[in-house]
Amino acid sequence: MSIKPGRERRVKAFHPWIYKKEILSFSRKPKPGELCIIRDYKGAFLAKGYINPESYIAIRILTFRKEEEIDLNFFVKRIEEAFNYRKKLLQSTSATTGFRLIHSEADYLPGLIADYYNGYIVAQFTTLGMEILKPLIVKALVEVVKPAGIYEKSTVPTRELEGLPLVEQTLYGDIPEKVEILENGIKIVVQIIGGQKTGYFLDQRENKLLFAKEFVDEGDKVLDAFCHLGGFGLHAAVIGKAEKVVAVDSSELALSLAEENARINGVLDKFEFIKGDCFKVLKNMQQAGEKFDSIVIDPPAFAKSKTVVEQAKKGYKELFLRGLKMLKPGGKIVVCSCSHHITPPILEEILLSAALDTRTPLRVLYTTYQAKDHPFVLQIPESRYLKCIFARRFEWEVK
Amino acid sequence: MSIKPGRERRVKAFHPWIYKKEILSFSRKPKPGELCIIRDYKGAFLAKGYINPESYIAIRILTFRKEEEIDLNFFVKRIEEAFNYRKKLLQSTSATTGFRLIHSEADYLPGLIADYYNGYIVAQFTTLGMEILKPLIVKALVEVVKPAGIYEKSTVPTRELEGLPLVEQTLYGDIPEKVEILENGIKIVVQIIGGQKTGYFLDQRENKLLFAKEFVDEGDKVLDAFCHLGGFGLHAAVIGKAEKVVAVDSSELALSLAEENARINGVLDKFEFIKGDCFKVLKNMQQAGEKFDSIVIDPPAFAKSKTVVEQAKKGYKELFLRGLKMLKPGGKIVVCSCSHHITPPILEEILLSAALDTRTPLRVLYTTYQAKDHPFVLQIPESRYLKCIFARRFEWEVK
Repeated sequence: MSIKPGRERRVKAFHPWIYKKEILSFSRKPKPGELCIIRDYKGAFLAKGYINPESYIAIRILTFRKEEEIDLNFFVKRIEEAFNYRKKLLQSTSATTGFRLIHSEADYLPGLIADYYNGYIVAQFTTLGMEILKPLIVKALVEVVKPAGIYEKSTVPTRELEGLPLVEQTLYGDIPEKVEILENGIKIVVQIIGGQKTGYFLDQRENKLLFAKEFVDEGDKVLDAFCHLGGFGLHAAVIGKAEKVVAVDSSELALSLAEENARINGVLDKFEFIKGDCFKVLKNMQQAGEKFDSIVIDPPAFAKSKTVVEQAKKGYKELFLRGLKMLKPGGKIVVCSCSHHITPPILEEILLSAALDTRTPLRVLYTTYQAKDHPFVLQIPESRYLKCIFARRFEWEVK
Repeated sequence: MSIKPGRERRVKAFHPWIYKKEILSFSRKPKPGELCIIRDYKGAFLAKGYINPESYIAIRILTFRKEEEIDLNFFVKRIEEAFNYRKKLLQSTSATTGFRLIHSEADYLPGLIADYYNGYIVAQFTTLGMEILKPLIVKALVEVVKPAGIYEKSTVPTRELEGLPLVEQTLYGDIPEKVEILENGIKIVVQIIGGQKTGYFLDQRENKLLFAKEFVDEGDKVLDAFCHLGGFGLHAAVIGKAEKVVAVDSSELALSLAEENARINGVLDKFEFIKGDCFKVLKNMQQAGEKFDSIVIDPPAFAKSKTVVEQAKKGYKELFLRGLKMLKPGGKIVVCSCSHHITPPILEEILLSAALDTRTPLRVLYTTYQAKDHPFVLQIPESRYLKCIFARRFEWEVK
């Protein structure tokens, strides 16, 4: 198939998407999900990928190399590059046995997410094209990574846009319900069967360590809002030697796992778990006059599309306002957003606005992004999604 | 004095500047450089600072607290907060004896820069207001930091805008011509008397360490463009175990110190020093077919004002193009800009543009900023100036 004049520019820049409206013509009617060759309007080779003609993103590119066939060997090589990249990155990260192995477009395997949990792989196939290629991919994963088991957790709603049902199943080996991994030396029990997403949010690993090392002092009282399995709070308690961690989440399952994690790390006595909507819980705490030395606010994606950015900003700001009002002078705060549409400058703007309203002078020590095993490809702006601002109040205050 | 209606907003947000055009009225004609109280148009207290009525930035604020007098005790407290902040930050940074002690506006001491080099302080007084307060500040520095000496290096051209001459002189104690500091365990000889700026660029400390740890592999061939005293290259050679470092700079003095630094760290045999304009040297190397495993490009500020951003972008892009063309597949590159006007998105845009032109698929691992002892105050956007992008080529290439 060929694409319209001018549309080859993005492809030549290694962006792996072709929109439906960019297609010029087909040599024959394509079958949904099948492999295809992409050519420019003059017929010159551009790339190879798979097509779902009814999808908004009609084609996703797998390779830009003419000589490369999309076969078992292709997936073995792609997965090898991805695996080697992670192994190298994790050399300097001690005691970590959970990481993202395949990050979809950012590893040039669009439609495939695979997380590695201490010997087990949890995979998501999000497109029809990858669904069809699943047998090859499973074979390649087994060959390269040699896991004890592969579990499919294709439960993302976007599958329905591709005409696919939601599926959870074992693809290879035996899968336990729960797996214990290490994250920066901290034990984390991850629920593989039935948990959220692929089980755990691995993309905050470096941020959690930075938080514990530089944003928690011995004896601190810490607030972990949207705690999920307790990652930030556990880091604060174990590595940061916090005295107390208040961990808030609305999910019963997440909190019960967080409690289990606090127990197996020997810090359960430091934790207070609060089940509830963070907007309400933080409001109540703030109005009751609670104060913290260190606060982390890591909400789920409020802005899943561009149209809801303005509304999402209000949500973030409300949370940040609550946080700043509960922050002691000299205190530390980390705010996060995992929405691609909330860019780093937008997140800074929201925090600044909250800082102005509360008259909190803030030093920003770091602006960080997702962990390195969730790469950001410069040519694919959509591949950056998570960002965190690490800020500190000045000691002085003006009443 | 009072400021115009609406102009109090920025002051209430803890921004320390008041522009000439924002002034409403004076109770009496102010003497250039003297202390003053800033009020809103209704007469309510806003802040205290110093004034230079002929300056574009007419007032710089020292405190927002009504009860605070600008006296010796004030400077002792400000310097104490700044010093404690650094001491805390440097706890986790082993073997570092050089840091920025006072970062002007970002420590709410506008007009004062002070760097600490292993017992000695090098200070810059950049405004008339701070020039007048110098005796108090020197006294406070001695009281809080107890240095062996304080050297004034008020050699920034902006002093002339304040009607001040350029000065270099000893303010306290005895000052050696050179001082040896440790930066991440690496020995750096800094030329205090006669060197560039305050002697050394301390703002890349964390970036140099990150570069050496994650962007240099044993045996690598490294290019350090704009090497100054050799910081990045030395980190690559000593910590990163690079086999070879090509270090380029146009300053004879800088290169002779870089050579001395390579010698005292025992890695002189790994270095090749090239004296020359980086634009020309990189062009020649690239045209000669040179290739590197790891490249750092850390140019001086090309965009000192907003009007020259477009021109500066061309300069950066030319350098990045050269770098990318010399980068091996799988190679690592760090590009930096210390111009405030080149924002992080602009720097990314320039790198992306160079990546497109050279068809280099790039993963971005980190976007970092100036070291923590050069704080960025959220309320003072001008206080963020340095940013670096750490990127890696994919292993595959398309010819």
